[in-house]
Amino acid sequence: TISTITMSSFAQFARNSRKIVGIGRNYADHIKELNNVRPTEPFFFVKPMSSLLFKNQGPVLLPRGVKVHYEVELAIIMGKELKDVRESETDRIYDAIAGYAVGIDMTARNMQEQNKKKGLPWAAAKGFDTFQPISDFIPKEKIPDPHNAELWLTVNDQLKQQDNTNLMLFRIPRLLEHISGIMKLEPNDIILTGTPKGVGPVVHGDVMKAGIRVDGKEIAEGLMEVKVEDRQGGYEFKL
Amino acid sequence: TISTITMSSFAQFARNSRKIVGIGRNYADHIKELNNVRPTEPFFFVKPMSSLLFKNQGPVLLPRGVKVHYEVELAIIMGKELKDVRESETDRIYDAIAGYAVGIDMTARNMQEQNKKKGLPWAAAKGFDTFQPISDFIPKEKIPDPHNAELWLTVNDQLKQQDNTNLMLFRIPRLLEHISGIMKLEPNDIILTGTPKGVGPVVHGDVMKAGIRVDGKEIAEGLMEVKVEDRQGGYEFKL
Ligand SMILES: [Mg+2]
Ligand SMILES: [Mg+2]
Ligand SMILES: [Mg+2]
Repeated sequence: TISTITMSSFAQFARNSRKIVGIGRNYADHIKELNNVRPTEPFFFVKPMSSLLFKNQGPVLLPRGVKVHYEVELAIIMGKELKDVRESETDRIYDAIAGYAVGIDMTARNMQEQNKKKGLPWAAAKGFDTFQPISDFIPKEKIPDPHNAELWLTVNDQLKQQDNTNLMLFRIPRLLEHISGIMKLEPNDIILTGTPKGVGPVVHGDVMKAGIRVDGKEIAEGLMEVKVEDRQGGYEFKL
Repeated sequence: TISTITMSSFAQFARNSRKIVGIGRNYADHIKELNNVRPTEPFFFVKPMSSLLFKNQGPVLLPRGVKVHYEVELAIIMGKELKDVRESETDRIYDAIAGYAVGIDMTARNMQEQNKKKGLPWAAAKGFDTFQPISDFIPKEKIPDPHNAELWLTVNDQLKQQDNTNLMLFRIPRLLEHISGIMKLEPNDIILTGTPKGVGPVVHGDVMKAGIRVDGKEIAEGLMEVKVEDRQGGYEFKL
């Protein structure tokens, strides 16, 4: 079962994962910085499993013609199936969560902006290979209150994002009510809970580091470092 | 390996599948019927694995407040990894395809229309549980030319969709160049190649049947029949 997950087995674990769900616009200041409209209910996109990038699996690759942004997020790792759960059923919800991870929801921002204008899916802009770097598995006990933890991200050791998860507009029970009322959540599913303010571009040669702190203390499993490189070949985005 | 897939093992096979990619707007008359713009290059959305519905797994469930449309499509089942393939590499492409299936890309049309207007993802509108009924696995040999097969769908035995796959705007090699240049395709991945004209709503109590004919002959593995019922509980869409 999920409770036996260790750091070393997480890549194997996530290879059995079937779904990556990304929540959009869940921090007010991030909504403002992209001039987006605040949602009246949660919404999500789906990232393909092929976008996952584990520790030491290599760099994030920037597709040709694409402006790529980082978005550091708290990831929920499901441990049990959850279907049609209500926000108020917090015991059932937290019992179904196996633990957490830090994820960087890499986003092809210029493609996404064009797709938004045209009313097209976000799938490609969110789904390139290597677009979902993820930390080791963080056992649930290490983050006793997932709405009181500090996410951070640096690029070339310059601080870009640093905010507390208490700024989430829709909290985890509300997110899981929304998602599980549409699609059943299954063990090993990964849910990205949205990014705080400070998103921005990366270019070839950059190094991203990210992590999560509880009570000012770094959670070792959440620490990640990943290089950024230009991708050779493949799809080229043209406006 | 994939070549050993039999009808009875397909549900197991697809449970190992990691990605469902749906191509949008790939038949001219379907683009017209929804007043959509013809794309200058292929585009896709990603459906969650949890939306898959195999033969005899039960009905398609209609979420509350949602107008659900059927879209019959030729599904490609991948047998080998494919990454950054060029349209011209047809041998490599067809060698990487394990076979086909008939799929019904169920779509929450009113949600999708609202999401298009707001520039939001299509993931929820395409991703409800049971929204991806799929036939048995069709070995590659049974459809020697995937661009010369007739897709059909009936609702309550009334013919709603019937068109030849030779009407695809972007053919399979072009689709696979596009997708594999963004996300590597992996064995067991499922690609929906778009729907011909004739899409429309289903309501509680309806029965959908679908299939595919080659040279006027029904392919047994492609035959499917699935009921439609209202879903109890879960997400309710409100305009
Ligand atoms: Mg994000
Ligand atoms: Mg989408
Ligand atoms: Mg479709």
